[in-house]
Amino acid sequence: MPGKSMILILLILLPVLGSGAASPAGEPDKSSWTVGILVMDGIYNTELVGPYDVFSHAKPFRVVTIAPAKRELKTAEGIRFLPDHDFTDHPPIDILVIPSFVDYQEQIRQEEIVGWIRDRGEKADWVLSHCWGAFYLAAAGFLDGREAMTFPPDIDKFAAMFPKVRTRKGFRFVRDGKFITSAGGVASYESPLYLVRILAGDEAARRVARGLVIPDWRLEKIPYLER
Amino acid sequence: MPGKSMILILLILLPVLGSGAASPAGEPDKSSWTVGILVMDGIYNTELVGPYDVFSHAKPFRVVTIAPAKRELKTAEGIRFLPDHDFTDHPPIDILVIPSFVDYQEQIRQEEIVGWIRDRGEKADWVLSHCWGAFYLAAAGFLDGREAMTFPPDIDKFAAMFPKVRTRKGFRFVRDGKFITSAGGVASYESPLYLVRILAGDEAARRVARGLVIPDWRLEKIPYLER
Repeated sequence: MPGKSMILILLILLPVLGSGAASPAGEPDKSSWTVGILVMDGIYNTELVGPYDVFSHAKPFRVVTIAPAKRELKTAEGIRFLPDHDFTDHPPIDILVIPSFVDYQEQIRQEEIVGWIRDRGEKADWVLSHCWGAFYLAAAGFLDGREAMTFPPDIDKFAAMFPKVRTRKGFRFVRDGKFITSAGGVASYESPLYLVRILAGDEAARRVARGLVIPDWRLEKIPYLER
Repeated sequence: MPGKSMILILLILLPVLGSGAASPAGEPDKSSWTVGILVMDGIYNTELVGPYDVFSHAKPFRVVTIAPAKRELKTAEGIRFLPDHDFTDHPPIDILVIPSFVDYQEQIRQEEIVGWIRDRGEKADWVLSHCWGAFYLAAAGFLDGREAMTFPPDIDKFAAMFPKVRTRKGFRFVRDGKFITSAGGVASYESPLYLVRILAGDEAARRVARGLVIPDWRLEKIPYLER
Protein backbone atom coordinates (compact mmCIF):
# COMPACT_ATOMS: atom_id res chain seq x y z
CA MET A 1 0.00 0.00 0.00
CA PRO A 2 2.19 2.88 -1.26
CA GLY A 3 -0.46 5.50 -0.30
CA LYS A 4 -0.05 4.77 3.39
CA SER A 5 3.77 4.97 3.25
CA MET A 6 3.51 8.31 1.46
CA ILE A 7 1.29 9.68 4.23
CA LEU A 8 3.71 8.32 6.85
CA ILE A 9 6.69 9.99 5.16
CA LEU A 10 4.75 13.26 4.95
CA LEU A 11 3.82 13.06 8.64
CA ILE A 12 7.49 12.57 9.54
CA LEU A 13 8.62 15.41 7.28
CA LEU A 14 5.87 17.91 8.13
CA PRO A 15 7.31 19.32 11.36
CA VAL A 16 10.62 20.01 9.57
CA LEU A 17 8.97 21.51 6.49
CA GLY A 18 6.57 23.49 8.66
CA SER A 19 9.27 25.22 10.66
CA GLY A 20 10.71 26.92 7.59
CA ALA A 21 13.96 27.08 9.56
CA ALA A 22 17.30 27.77 7.93
CA SER A 23 18.87 25.66 10.62
CA PRO A 24 22.57 26.31 11.17
CA ALA A 25 24.76 23.45 12.37
CA GLY A 26 23.99 22.56 15.94
CA GLU A 27 20.62 24.34 16.13
CA PRO A 28 17.86 21.98 17.22
CA ASP A 29 15.07 21.71 14.66
CA LYS A 30 11.78 22.57 16.27
CA SER A 31 8.35 23.16 14.87
CA SER A 32 7.69 25.90 17.42
CA TRP A 33 9.51 27.79 20.15
CA THR A 34 8.28 29.01 23.51
CA VAL A 35 9.68 32.41 24.41
CA GLY A 36 9.71 33.09 28.16
CA ILE A 37 10.17 36.74 29.17
CA LEU A 38 11.10 37.44 32.81
CA VAL A 39 8.84 40.18 34.21
CA MET A 40 9.05 41.96 37.56
CA ASP A 41 8.17 45.36 38.98
CA GLY A 42 10.19 48.13 37.33
CA ILE A 43 10.56 46.38 33.96
CA TYR A 44 11.11 48.87 31.15
CA ASN A 45 8.18 49.00 28.71
CA THR A 46 10.19 48.87 25.51
CA GLU A 47 12.30 45.91 26.60
CA LEU A 48 9.17 43.95 27.42
CA VAL A 49 7.39 44.88 24.21
CA GLY A 50 10.28 44.73 21.68
CA PRO A 51 10.94 40.98 22.04
CA TYR A 52 7.26 40.31 22.80
CA ASP A 53 6.13 41.87 19.53
CA VAL A 54 8.82 40.46 17.27
CA PHE A 55 8.34 36.89 18.49
CA SER A 56 4.55 37.00 18.77
CA HIS A 57 4.18 38.42 15.25
CA ALA A 58 6.51 35.71 13.88
CA LYS A 59 5.00 32.29 13.76
CA PRO A 60 5.77 29.69 15.09
CA PHE A 61 6.80 31.40 18.31
CA ARG A 62 4.66 31.50 21.44
CA VAL A 63 5.39 34.21 24.02
CA VAL A 64 4.70 33.96 27.75
CA THR A 65 5.62 36.32 30.59
CA ILE A 66 6.95 34.79 33.79
CA ALA A 67 7.18 36.52 37.19
CA PRO A 68 8.58 35.28 40.52
CA ALA A 69 5.00 35.38 41.86
CA LYS A 70 1.63 35.78 40.16
CA ARG A 71 0.47 39.27 41.18
CA GLU A 72 -0.09 42.66 39.58
CA LEU A 73 3.16 44.30 38.42
CA LYS A 74 4.05 47.85 37.43
CA THR A 75 6.50 48.79 34.69
CA ALA A 76 9.22 51.42 35.23
CA GLU A 77 7.09 53.89 33.29
CA GLY A 78 3.87 53.06 35.14
CA ILE A 79 1.79 50.47 33.25
CA ARG A 80 0.11 47.99 35.60
CA PHE A 81 0.01 44.50 34.09
CA LEU A 82 -0.43 40.83 34.95
CA PRO A 83 2.11 38.06 34.27
CA ASP A 84 1.02 34.85 32.54
CA HIS A 85 2.95 32.51 34.84
CA ASP A 86 5.07 32.37 37.96
CA PHE A 87 8.36 30.56 38.57
CA THR A 88 6.50 27.33 39.45
CA ASP A 89 3.90 26.91 36.69
CA HIS A 90 5.43 28.06 33.40
CA PRO A 91 5.98 25.83 30.33
CA PRO A 92 9.53 24.77 29.31
CA ILE A 93 11.38 27.76 27.84
CA ASP A 94 13.18 27.48 24.49
CA ILE A 95 14.15 31.15 24.33
CA LEU A 96 14.72 32.93 27.64
CA VAL A 97 14.52 36.75 27.56
CA ILE A 98 15.88 38.92 30.40
CA PRO A 99 14.88 42.60 29.99
CA SER A 100 16.09 45.36 32.31
CA PHE A 101 14.59 46.43 35.61
CA VAL A 102 14.92 49.55 37.75
CA ASP A 103 16.27 47.56 40.75
CA TYR A 104 18.81 45.50 38.83
CA GLN A 105 21.68 46.19 41.23
CA GLU A 106 19.79 44.63 44.14
CA GLN A 107 18.11 41.88 42.11
CA ILE A 108 21.36 40.45 40.71
CA ARG A 109 22.27 39.60 44.33
CA GLN A 110 19.01 37.70 44.94
CA GLU A 111 19.45 33.95 44.54
CA GLU A 112 15.70 33.40 43.97
CA ILE A 113 15.99 35.41 40.76
CA VAL A 114 19.55 34.61 39.60
CA GLY A 115 19.16 30.91 40.45
CA TRP A 116 15.99 30.72 38.35
CA ILE A 117 17.74 32.45 35.43
CA ARG A 118 20.74 30.09 35.76
CA ASP A 119 18.53 26.98 35.76
CA ARG A 120 16.19 28.02 32.94
CA GLY A 121 19.02 29.54 30.93
CA GLU A 122 21.02 26.30 31.05
CA LYS A 123 18.02 24.39 29.69
CA ALA A 124 17.06 26.96 27.04
CA ASP A 125 18.27 26.87 23.43
CA TRP A 126 18.80 30.64 23.44
CA VAL A 127 19.19 33.31 26.10
CA LEU A 128 18.66 37.01 25.26
CA SER A 129 19.24 40.04 27.43
CA HIS A 130 18.33 43.66 26.79
CA CYS A 131 19.96 46.68 28.43
CA TRP A 132 20.77 45.87 32.10
CA GLY A 133 19.50 42.31 31.58
CA ALA A 134 23.15 41.45 30.85
CA PHE A 135 23.96 42.08 34.53
CA TYR A 136 21.65 39.17 35.47
CA LEU A 137 23.26 36.85 32.91
CA ALA A 138 26.72 37.81 34.14
CA ALA A 139 25.66 37.30 37.78
CA ALA A 140 24.43 33.82 36.77
CA GLY A 141 27.93 33.10 35.44
CA PHE A 142 26.76 32.67 31.85
CA LEU A 143 29.03 35.31 30.35
CA ASP A 144 32.40 34.33 31.86
CA GLY A 145 34.87 34.19 28.97
CA ARG A 146 32.19 35.30 26.52
CA GLU A 147 31.78 38.48 24.52
CA ALA A 148 28.84 40.55 25.70
CA MET A 149 27.43 44.06 26.03
CA THR A 150 24.79 46.04 27.93
CA PHE A 151 23.10 49.49 27.94
CA PRO A 152 25.78 51.70 26.32
CA PRO A 153 26.11 54.32 29.12
CA ASP A 154 26.78 51.48 31.63
CA ILE A 155 29.25 49.36 29.67
CA ASP A 156 32.27 50.53 31.72
CA LYS A 157 30.45 49.78 34.98
CA PHE A 158 29.52 46.35 33.63
CA ALA A 159 33.12 45.60 32.59
CA ALA A 160 34.40 46.64 36.03
CA MET A 161 31.82 44.50 37.87
CA PHE A 162 32.38 41.42 35.69
CA PRO A 163 36.07 41.30 34.69
CA LYS A 164 35.73 37.72 33.34
CA VAL A 165 33.32 38.93 30.64
CA ARG A 166 34.86 40.13 27.39
CA THR A 167 32.80 43.32 27.30
CA ARG A 168 32.38 44.95 23.91
CA LYS A 169 31.41 48.45 22.79
CA GLY A 170 29.92 49.96 19.67
CA PHE A 171 27.34 47.33 18.74
CA ARG A 172 23.56 47.07 18.84
CA PHE A 173 23.84 43.47 20.06
CA VAL A 174 26.50 40.81 20.60
CA ARG A 175 25.97 37.08 20.06
CA ASP A 176 28.31 34.56 21.65
CA GLY A 177 27.02 31.01 21.21
CA LYS A 178 23.46 30.82 22.49
CA PHE A 179 23.74 34.11 24.42
CA ILE A 180 22.69 37.39 22.80
CA THR A 181 23.14 40.58 24.81
CA SER A 182 21.65 43.79 23.40
CA ALA A 183 21.84 47.52 24.07
CA GLY A 184 18.16 47.57 25.03
CA GLY A 185 15.65 50.33 24.29
CA VAL A 186 14.51 50.14 20.69
CA ALA A 187 17.50 47.85 19.98
CA SER A 188 15.30 45.30 21.78
CA TYR A 189 13.51 44.77 18.44
CA GLU A 190 16.77 43.96 16.65
CA SER A 191 18.26 40.91 18.36
CA PRO A 192 14.85 39.13 18.33
CA LEU A 193 14.63 39.84 14.57
CA TYR A 194 18.13 38.38 14.21
CA LEU A 195 16.99 35.23 16.02
CA VAL A 196 13.76 34.96 14.00
CA ARG A 197 15.97 35.11 10.91
CA ILE A 198 18.10 32.22 12.19
CA LEU A 199 15.15 30.07 13.26
CA ALA A 200 12.44 30.93 10.72
CA GLY A 201 14.36 32.45 7.81
CA ASP A 202 15.14 35.87 6.36
CA GLU A 203 11.73 36.36 4.72
CA ALA A 204 9.96 35.66 8.03
CA ALA A 205 12.15 38.26 9.80
CA ARG A 206 11.55 40.83 7.06
CA ARG A 207 7.78 40.20 7.16
CA VAL A 208 7.73 40.85 10.91
CA ALA A 209 9.83 43.99 10.44
CA ARG A 210 7.42 45.28 7.77
CA GLY A 211 4.46 44.66 10.11
CA LEU A 212 6.26 46.66 12.80
CA VAL A 213 6.89 49.49 10.30
CA ILE A 214 10.67 49.03 10.34
CA PRO A 215 11.42 50.08 6.76
CA ASP A 216 13.69 47.89 4.65
CA TRP A 217 14.98 45.75 7.50
CA ARG A 218 18.22 44.00 6.63
CA LEU A 219 20.59 42.40 9.08
CA GLU A 220 23.56 43.77 7.11
CA LYS A 221 22.58 47.32 8.08
CA ILE A 222 22.81 46.62 11.82
CA PRO A 223 26.15 46.88 13.65
CA TYR A 224 26.26 43.60 15.57
CA LEU A 225 28.92 41.12 16.63
CA GLU A 226 28.63 37.36 16.17
CA ARG A 227 30.95 34.73 17.58
CA MET B 1 10.84 98.16 46.93
CA PRO B 2 12.63 96.91 43.80
CA GLY B 3 13.34 93.48 45.42
CA LYS B 4 9.65 92.64 45.54
CA SER B 5 9.09 93.66 41.88
CA MET B 6 12.02 91.48 40.83
CA ILE B 7 10.52 88.47 42.59
CA LEU B 8 7.15 89.20 40.98
CA ILE B 9 8.72 89.37 37.50
CA LEU B 10 10.58 86.10 38.15
CA LEU B 11 7.39 84.43 39.31
CA ILE B 12 5.62 85.51 36.13
CA LEU B 13 8.51 84.38 33.93
CA LEU B 14 9.27 81.08 35.68
CA PRO B 15 6.61 78.90 34.02
CA VAL B 16 7.87 80.03 30.61
CA LEU B 17 11.55 79.59 31.49
CA GLY B 18 10.84 76.28 33.21
CA SER B 19 9.14 74.72 30.22
CA GLY B 20 12.24 75.10 28.06
CA ALA B 21 9.80 75.28 25.16
CA ALA B 22 10.76 76.53 21.74
CA SER B 23 7.20 77.75 21.43
CA PRO B 24 6.06 78.27 17.85
CA ALA B 25 3.44 80.91 17.15
CA GLY B 26 0.06 79.86 18.44
CA GLU B 27 1.30 77.09 20.78
CA PRO B 28 0.08 77.61 24.32
CA ASP B 29 2.92 77.89 26.82
CA LYS B 30 2.55 75.31 29.54
CA SER B 31 4.81 74.16 32.33
CA SER B 32 3.61 70.57 31.95
CA TRP B 33 1.46 68.50 29.63
CA THR B 34 -0.90 65.63 30.36
CA VAL B 35 -0.75 62.93 27.69
CA GLY B 36 -3.90 60.80 27.53
CA ILE B 37 -3.57 57.52 25.61
CA LEU B 38 -6.80 55.74 24.61
CA VAL B 39 -6.58 52.05 25.56
CA MET B 40 -9.03 49.24 24.74
CA ASP B 41 -8.86 45.49 24.16
CA GLY B 42 -6.78 44.65 21.11
CA ILE B 43 -4.44 47.65 21.38
CA TYR B 44 -1.08 46.97 19.73
CA ASN B 45 1.79 46.81 22.24
CA THR B 46 4.21 49.01 20.35
CA GLU B 47 1.69 51.78 19.73
CA LEU B 48 0.88 51.91 23.41
CA VAL B 49 4.51 51.84 24.51
CA GLY B 50 6.15 54.08 21.86
CA PRO B 51 4.30 57.27 22.85
CA TYR B 52 4.12 56.15 26.51
CA ASP B 53 7.90 55.84 26.75
CA VAL B 54 8.87 58.95 24.82
CA PHE B 55 6.55 61.22 26.80
CA SER B 56 7.13 59.62 30.20
CA HIS B 57 10.92 59.78 29.80
CA ALA B 58 10.66 63.47 28.77
CA LYS B 59 9.84 65.82 31.58
CA PRO B 60 7.51 67.70 32.02
CA PHE B 61 5.01 65.28 30.49
CA ARG B 62 2.64 63.10 32.52
CA VAL B 63 1.16 60.04 30.81
CA VAL B 64 -2.18 58.41 31.68
CA THR B 65 -4.05 55.60 29.96
CA ILE B 66 -7.81 56.00 29.52
CA ALA B 67 -10.29 53.23 28.71
CA PRO B 68 -14.05 53.37 28.10
CA ALA B 69 -14.49 51.40 31.34
CA LYS B 70 -12.10 50.54 34.17
CA ARG B 71 -11.48 46.81 33.80
CA GLU B 72 -8.66 44.46 32.81
CA LEU B 73 -7.70 44.79 29.13
CA LYS B 74 -5.69 42.59 26.79
CA THR B 75 -3.36 43.85 24.07
CA ALA B 76 -3.46 42.45 20.53
CA GLU B 77 -0.34 40.43 21.33
CA GLY B 78 -1.65 39.16 24.67
CA ILE B 79 -0.45 41.34 27.57
CA ARG B 80 -3.14 41.79 30.23
CA PHE B 81 -3.05 45.28 31.75
CA LEU B 82 -5.08 47.80 33.72
CA PRO B 83 -6.01 51.31 32.56
CA ASP B 84 -5.40 54.31 34.83
CA HIS B 85 -8.74 55.97 34.14
CA ASP B 86 -12.08 55.56 32.40
CA PHE B 87 -13.98 58.02 30.19
CA THR B 88 -15.58 59.65 33.27
CA ASP B 89 -12.68 60.20 35.70
CA HIS B 90 -9.60 61.20 33.71
CA PRO B 91 -7.76 64.54 34.03
CA PRO B 92 -7.96 67.14 31.21
CA ILE B 93 -5.92 65.98 28.24
CA ASP B 94 -3.36 68.28 26.60
CA ILE B 95 -2.06 65.66 24.17
CA LEU B 96 -4.53 62.99 23.03
CA VAL B 97 -3.01 59.80 21.60
CA ILE B 98 -5.07 57.29 19.56
CA PRO B 99 -3.14 54.03 18.90
CA SER B 100 -4.48 51.21 16.72
CA PHE B 101 -6.76 48.40 17.76
CA VAL B 102 -7.62 45.02 16.23
CA ASP B 103 -11.34 45.90 15.96
CA TYR B 104 -10.89 49.35 14.45
CA GLN B 105 -13.40 48.83 11.63
CA GLU B 106 -16.22 48.21 14.13
CA GLN B 107 -15.06 50.73 16.72
CA ILE B 108 -14.97 53.70 14.33
CA ARG B 109 -18.76 53.20 14.02
CA GLN B 110 -19.33 53.32 17.78
CA GLU B 111 -20.44 56.76 18.94
CA GLU B 112 -19.35 56.08 22.54
CA ILE B 113 -15.76 55.87 21.32
CA VAL B 114 -15.76 58.33 18.41
CA GLY B 115 -17.82 60.90 20.35
CA TRP B 116 -15.32 60.77 23.22
CA ILE B 117 -12.39 61.22 20.79
CA ARG B 118 -14.19 64.14 19.09
CA ASP B 119 -14.88 65.91 22.37
CA ARG B 120 -11.45 65.38 23.96
CA GLY B 121 -9.64 65.99 20.68
CA GLU B 122 -11.36 69.37 20.23
CA LYS B 123 -10.21 70.44 23.69
CA ALA B 124 -6.66 69.05 23.38
CA ASP B 125 -3.69 71.09 22.20
CA TRP B 126 -2.41 68.17 20.13
CA VAL B 127 -3.93 64.96 18.75
CA LEU B 128 -1.69 62.07 17.66
CA SER B 129 -2.67 58.83 15.94
CA HIS B 130 -0.56 55.77 15.22
CA CYS B 131 -1.27 53.16 12.53
CA TRP B 132 -5.06 52.60 12.26
CA GLY B 133 -5.64 55.30 14.89
CA ALA B 134 -6.06 57.67 11.92
CA PHE B 135 -9.34 55.90 11.07
CA TYR B 136 -10.78 57.05 14.41
CA LEU B 137 -9.64 60.66 13.83
CA ALA B 138 -11.13 60.62 10.33
CA ALA B 139 -14.39 59.12 11.65
CA ALA B 140 -14.50 61.96 14.19
CA GLY B 141 -14.28 64.41 11.26
CA PHE B 142 -10.95 65.86 12.37
CA LEU B 143 -9.08 65.13 9.16
CA ASP B 144 -11.51 66.55 6.56
CA GLY B 145 -9.47 68.79 4.27
CA ARG B 146 -6.27 67.92 6.15
CA GLU B 147 -3.20 65.97 5.11
CA ALA B 148 -2.91 62.67 6.95
CA MET B 149 -1.62 59.11 6.75
CA THR B 150 -2.07 55.70 8.39
CA PHE B 151 -0.46 52.20 8.47
CA PRO B 152 1.28 52.05 5.06
CA PRO B 153 -0.39 48.82 3.77
CA ASP B 154 -3.84 50.35 4.43
CA ILE B 155 -3.34 53.85 3.03
CA ASP B 156 -5.41 53.13 -0.13
CA LYS B 157 -8.26 51.70 1.96
CA PHE B 158 -8.11 54.78 4.19
CA ALA B 159 -8.19 57.15 1.21
CA ALA B 160 -11.21 55.31 -0.27
CA MET B 161 -13.12 55.37 3.04
CA PHE B 162 -12.38 59.04 3.75
CA PRO B 163 -12.28 60.92 0.43
CA LYS B 164 -12.30 64.33 2.16
CA VAL B 165 -8.91 63.59 3.74
CA ARG B 166 -5.84 64.53 1.72
CA THR B 167 -4.16 61.16 2.25
CA ARG B 168 -0.39 61.09 1.82
CA LYS B 169 2.10 58.29 1.19
CA GLY B 170 5.81 57.81 1.78
CA PHE B 171 6.21 59.45 5.20
CA ARG B 172 6.80 58.22 8.76
CA PHE B 173 4.32 60.80 10.05
CA VAL B 174 2.31 63.75 8.77
CA ARG B 175 1.52 66.87 10.81
CA ASP B 176 -1.33 69.15 9.81
CA GLY B 177 -1.98 71.82 12.44
CA LYS B 178 -2.46 70.11 15.79
CA PHE B 179 -3.05 66.68 14.24
CA ILE B 180 -0.16 64.27 13.75
CA THR B 181 -0.91 60.92 12.07
CA SER B 182 1.87 58.32 12.02
CA ALA B 183 2.59 55.01 10.31
CA GLY B 184 2.51 53.22 13.65
CA GLY B 185 4.71 50.33 14.74
CA VAL B 186 8.16 51.59 15.71
CA ALA B 187 7.33 54.87 13.95
CA SER B 188 5.23 55.43 17.08
CA TYR B 189 8.41 56.60 18.79
CA GLU B 190 9.07 59.23 16.12
CA SER B 191 6.09 61.59 16.13
CA PRO B 192 6.17 61.82 19.97
CA LEU B 193 9.87 62.74 19.72
CA TYR B 194 8.93 65.38 17.14
CA LEU B 195 6.37 66.81 19.57
CA VAL B 196 8.78 66.70 22.53
CA ARG B 197 11.19 68.68 20.36
CA ILE B 198 8.50 71.33 19.68
CA LEU B 199 7.36 71.59 23.30
CA ALA B 200 10.55 70.95 25.29
CA GLY B 201 13.33 71.60 22.80
CA ASP B 202 15.76 69.68 20.62
CA GLU B 203 18.13 68.71 23.44
CA ALA B 204 15.23 67.23 25.46
CA ALA B 205 14.15 65.14 22.45
CA ARG B 206 17.70 63.95 21.81
CA ARG B 207 18.16 63.04 25.50
CA VAL B 208 15.00 60.90 25.41
CA ALA B 209 16.16 59.28 22.17
CA ARG B 210 19.54 58.43 23.70
CA GLY B 211 17.82 56.87 26.72
CA LEU B 212 15.74 54.75 24.36
CA VAL B 213 18.91 53.68 22.49
CA ILE B 214 17.92 55.44 19.27
CA PRO B 215 21.39 56.36 18.01
CA ASP B 216 22.04 59.91 16.79
CA TRP B 217 18.38 60.94 16.63
CA ARG B 218 17.87 63.94 14.42
CA LEU B 219 14.55 65.12 13.03
CA GLU B 220 16.22 65.90 9.69
CA LYS B 221 16.86 62.18 9.13
CA ILE B 222 13.16 61.27 9.34
CA PRO B 223 10.90 61.53 6.28
CA TYR B 224 7.93 63.47 7.63
CA LEU B 225 5.52 66.06 6.29
CA GLU B 226 4.62 69.27 8.11
CA ARG B 227 1.88 71.71 7.21
